[in-house]
Amino acid sequence: MRIGKNTILTKNFPSISGFAAVAGEKEGQGPLGDMFDYLYKGDTDGEKSFEKAESKMQLDAAKRAMKKAGITPQDIQIAFAGDLLNQCIGTSYGLRELQIPFAGLYGACSTMAESIALASLMIDAKYATHALAVTSSHFCSSERQFRFPLEYGGQRPPTSQWTATASGAVVVSESSEPPYINAVSIGKIVDAGVTDINNMGAAMAPAAAETISGYFSDTNTSAEDYDLILTGDLAQVGSDLLLKLLDLEGISLQGRHNDCGIMLYDRKKQDVHSGGSGCGCSAAVLCADILKRIKEGRLHKVLFVATGALMSPTSNQQGESIPSIAHLIYLSDKKEEI
Amino acid sequence: MRIGKNTILTKNFPSISGFAAVAGEKEGQGPLGDMFDYLYKGDTDGEKSFEKAESKMQLDAAKRAMKKAGITPQDIQIAFAGDLLNQCIGTSYGLRELQIPFAGLYGACSTMAESIALASLMIDAKYATHALAVTSSHFCSSERQFRFPLEYGGQRPPTSQWTATASGAVVVSESSEPPYINAVSIGKIVDAGVTDINNMGAAMAPAAAETISGYFSDTNTSAEDYDLILTGDLAQVGSDLLLKLLDLEGISLQGRHNDCGIMLYDRKKQDVHSGGSGCGCSAAVLCADILKRIKEGRLHKVLFVATGALMSPTSNQQGESIPSIAHLIYLSDKKEEI
Repeated sequence: MRIGKNTILTKNFPSISGFAAVAGEKEGQGPLGDMFDYLYKGDTDGEKSFEKAESKMQLDAAKRAMKKAGITPQDIQIAFAGDLLNQCIGTSYGLRELQIPFAGLYGACSTMAESIALASLMIDAKYATHALAVTSSHFCSSERQFRFPLEYGGQRPPTSQWTATASGAVVVSESSEPPYINAVSIGKIVDAGVTDINNMGAAMAPAAAETISGYFSDTNTSAEDYDLILTGDLAQVGSDLLLKLLDLEGISLQGRHNDCGIMLYDRKKQDVHSGGSGCGCSAAVLCADILKRIKEGRLHKVLFVATGALMSPTSNQQGESIPSIAHLIYLSDKKEEI
Repeated sequence: MRIGKNTILTKNFPSISGFAAVAGEKEGQGPLGDMFDYLYKGDTDGEKSFEKAESKMQLDAAKRAMKKAGITPQDIQIAFAGDLLNQCIGTSYGLRELQIPFAGLYGACSTMAESIALASLMIDAKYATHALAVTSSHFCSSERQFRFPLEYGGQRPPTSQWTATASGAVVVSESSEPPYINAVSIGKIVDAGVTDINNMGAAMAPAAAETISGYFSDTNTSAEDYDLILTGDLAQVGSDLLLKLLDLEGISLQGRHNDCGIMLYDRKKQDVHSGGSGCGCSAAVLCADILKRIKEGRLHKVLFVATGALMSPTSNQQGESIPSIAHLIYLSDKKEEI
């Protein structure tokens, strides 16, 4: 059921029946290191290119999520997936062998929320009994595509973020076990005029603010109704801005905010500057940590708000600012109407 | 309601309440030239870059479709859109000013069917009352991204296709006027091992064959139940292959097949080799010609099967073959259960 301007409440409370996260060495050395299902060795885990390594990770995460859900690829009736690479090749080559109906997405780093939102609606409307949502990113494939050749050793300014080498996958199903998806909000494209491609957090914070404030308004709820409002991936610079932007609207997140880009790395020791980013960052934090805590009843009500910057190197070189977007899903350990 | 393996029958028969197609000069000189809503001048219509010109086209098509549906952007509750450019910037910059909930897609040249399929399901499930589906391509922005700088004047082999400069948009709504979307099939990734990036038709034909044969099997129908089975964009080489592949399965399209890549240009006069391609090709043929004919009762039952090649220049340079996909929508001038 649609309420307010952008929010859809699910009526059948789709459930996440399986989830998995895999990551690279650096992510394995971070605070969530021992929570991943598998850690990849070196930059490619034996593959011939960074891109092939990313595809392998995405397939691996998808297979692990399906296994945990107790299903095979033949049970999946639709997959929603995407990544950061040009033409989303991390996904198309990664999921190729599964032979499942596939709807490709491009939402930059918002893809995990976009894919889970659409998968949930497919389950809620009974168009499918099992749907897959998966995304990935890889530091090396991203860095050379968006910024500089790795060998160049480009300097990174303090506002920059570190693209996570990671993949997360979830299976959304008709099931009576938590986590449940009780609501979703599809975001709008927001462009506050930021042009600095080394400050994605600043570009994406206005989109996160718009989606969160719109959701609170649509549902007549506030931060105190949730245990955690988890953005991804604003990192430290973007998170600080988000809180300021919401403050201007009279909205406080009341100490309940955290960000996947902050959670994935130890910023004091790991030289990631503002924090993590990349489709795989929020996907991995969600699937390695958050969903597990909801499933085990250690977290109850979570807003997962993944943010994406929708520019390209070409648009940046042509002087364009950075349009951004944020999609939201409301995860809970209980089926409940808002 | 889901039937068979991949097909969903709509129960509320979503309707296309508005549609529009805009295109470039070359498309204007083709057989459908006088059917477009607007023809752009030169390569950029006064914009500073090919990419900005593509964004302008996409916004224009979207606005025209909404106007014809008698609605404003505020009435659109979700937009599904994408294009061929890296990070889909044709779409993100094109639709930025509309301020509507947006789910970005990447389906290469299959995007028009993917976007209409998802928009239709949103309407069918009553998650929205109006949804937008839009896509675009531009010869110049594509050519320099996927192949060679335009100034290089690269030779094109006979199997190559010409990327259309065009955009098509539809508004899907709850309405009691045709065209109706009575069914959709979301395709699987199919890779027959083709590696020649100058022969997209051959790479995509197996995906079209799989989706069409799967749909016939799911619905227990055959080609004679439809007036037109319209693929896009296999062009001549791919279309010939499709008929052969289906023949091997004992399926005949009985003279009812046509292809958007064949329809958009006059191959004898326009030097497009095998025919047209690009997200905008099938979108423009559908929105300039086919939907009009269904609305006016000159066509009754149409399967629109848009095909996409999911490779990138990087994956090709790394020796990968070309994974492809085809999504199907069943358009009719009557609400009817299959």
